[in-house]
Amino acid sequence: MKTKIILDVDTGIDDALAITFALGRKDAELIGVTTCFGNVTFETASRNSLNLLDLLGRSDVPVYAGAKGPGDESEWQVREHLYRIHGNNGIGNVELPVSKRKVEEKKAWQFMAEACRKYRDELILICVGPLTNLAKAIELDREAVGLCKKIVIMGGALTVKGNVTPYAEANIYNDVKAAQKVIDSGLDLYFVGLDVTLQTIITGNDIMRWKQLDNEKAGKLYEAASYYYSNEFEVVGGAMHDPLAVEAALDPEIITEWFPVNLMVEQEGVTKGRMIGDKDLLNEPRKRIHYGLKVNGERFVKDFEETVLNVIS
Amino acid sequence: MKTKIILDVDTGIDDALAITFALGRKDAELIGVTTCFGNVTFETASRNSLNLLDLLGRSDVPVYAGAKGPGDESEWQVREHLYRIHGNNGIGNVELPVSKRKVEEKKAWQFMAEACRKYRDELILICVGPLTNLAKAIELDREAVGLCKKIVIMGGALTVKGNVTPYAEANIYNDVKAAQKVIDSGLDLYFVGLDVTLQTIITGNDIMRWKQLDNEKAGKLYEAASYYYSNEFEVVGGAMHDPLAVEAALDPEIITEWFPVNLMVEQEGVTKGRMIGDKDLLNEPRKRIHYGLKVNGERFVKDFEETVLNVIS
Repeated sequence: MKTKIILDVDTGIDDALAITFALGRKDAELIGVTTCFGNVTFETASRNSLNLLDLLGRSDVPVYAGAKGPGDESEWQVREHLYRIHGNNGIGNVELPVSKRKVEEKKAWQFMAEACRKYRDELILICVGPLTNLAKAIELDREAVGLCKKIVIMGGALTVKGNVTPYAEANIYNDVKAAQKVIDSGLDLYFVGLDVTLQTIITGNDIMRWKQLDNEKAGKLYEAASYYYSNEFEVVGGAMHDPLAVEAALDPEIITEWFPVNLMVEQEGVTKGRMIGDKDLLNEPRKRIHYGLKVNGERFVKDFEETVLNVIS
Repeated sequence: MKTKIILDVDTGIDDALAITFALGRKDAELIGVTTCFGNVTFETASRNSLNLLDLLGRSDVPVYAGAKGPGDESEWQVREHLYRIHGNNGIGNVELPVSKRKVEEKKAWQFMAEACRKYRDELILICVGPLTNLAKAIELDREAVGLCKKIVIMGGALTVKGNVTPYAEANIYNDVKAAQKVIDSGLDLYFVGLDVTLQTIITGNDIMRWKQLDNEKAGKLYEAASYYYSNEFEVVGGAMHDPLAVEAALDPEIITEWFPVNLMVEQEGVTKGRMIGDKDLLNEPRKRIHYGLKVNGERFVKDFEETVLNVIS
């Protein structure tokens, strides 16, 4: 049976690639996309997700809008450098055909909680944006969220420097309260942070076969990916942050070391958003966080390229 | 055959306990103690080491004085809070009988390098103070140091907060240039940092049997240990930072996860002394650092208590 997944995104180029990758996974069924502020505003994230799903012929996948800013309390101002990484429209200035669909009426967190209760251990939550929607789903119905099979989060920078500051990774930094709430929930969490995503880099060579396809889907996806790996400033090539979280959710052995640890999120000051060991829980035998430290990067890049190729062929 | 070891110390209560523990190991022969500034001045470290060795009936173990400050360039000012942790004299204000011995003429780094060349893979270097002496030994004769069996360092705070600042552990912080030089040497290094040493805590209960012995050695050691675990401010009880490095050197399986990683040391600013992934070497398959992330703390405390008991009985 296919594992049901919900993908919580702030689409974003690597989010778009994660959606595409998820659609191509033979072992998964994407039952919904939930959107959040982050790389872009939540409206843009919703718009990009709808457009992309329709382009890929998957207008059957519903999109649920979520938080407009940290705690869903204030409007989000997209940071200047993000326009360089993701383009002005969030997907590398690539124009996608405009979907006629709208987002569902239900809020993202409501859908998440209800789906968890309905599908229980048939469902994995994959969150690749700020953790606001997940925190709100937990607030709404902690018990329901606790029923799902697994929660996988793209976030954190434990043994490497951050990408927003030298201490913090963007998804955690963008809503530090939500991140701490999610940790405080006591749920088991699988973190796919920069420690591993900076080891899954694609360059033009890796996706040459996408370029060679002669159709709109492939053209648009290749163009967006090219924009991303030319402008992501951390590395030469594009780090597949969000797609790796999808693979890690479905095939956890791609992460060759899941470090069990209890972490906390620094809430303020220069190191706001830093994830670091929670001293109070250091000698607690039960570790709630499983933090990815090693990855089979070569295999991932191969899987990713091929899976996406199948979707856009 | 016993493994030869050199212990590089800034004695310090947990250094004193590490020396005692090393003397009790049936699988090791302590061929020399080298001293450094840090918890105390290098003179006090030398004095404490000589006094302790003589008290324990091991005046056959030579002591070599090393660096007086970072880079051996300037005099060291002991930080105020260290008097609280280690007492005014470095060993919890316990008066040890004064040894008539003096330190050897040879400098610490000269002894280290010569011993490495002489004993090669029969010798392990265990450094539990700032890395100044080791850096100078490498400067003096990199090739020789590269011949030894293993280099084990007590230092670092990768997944937990530091103890000097929230970012840095004392041994690394106290000579950041030396730490980086040691890393840049390209030698394989085994780091035993706060990540694991904060999980090897002793309290009065753990060393009750030391107290019950009725002799001078035991009395002094128990008194020093008690001072330490009452005044170490990080945890309730005393973290066995330096003794754990000795065990990890001789019985590496006590560390149940050695994380292979390439790290660098931040040289200045608020995060001076922070050890963090070296981005330039993130995708380099060869990892030079083996960083302890998990420890069998219970077994260590038991081994430690018993081994020291045998020395002081």
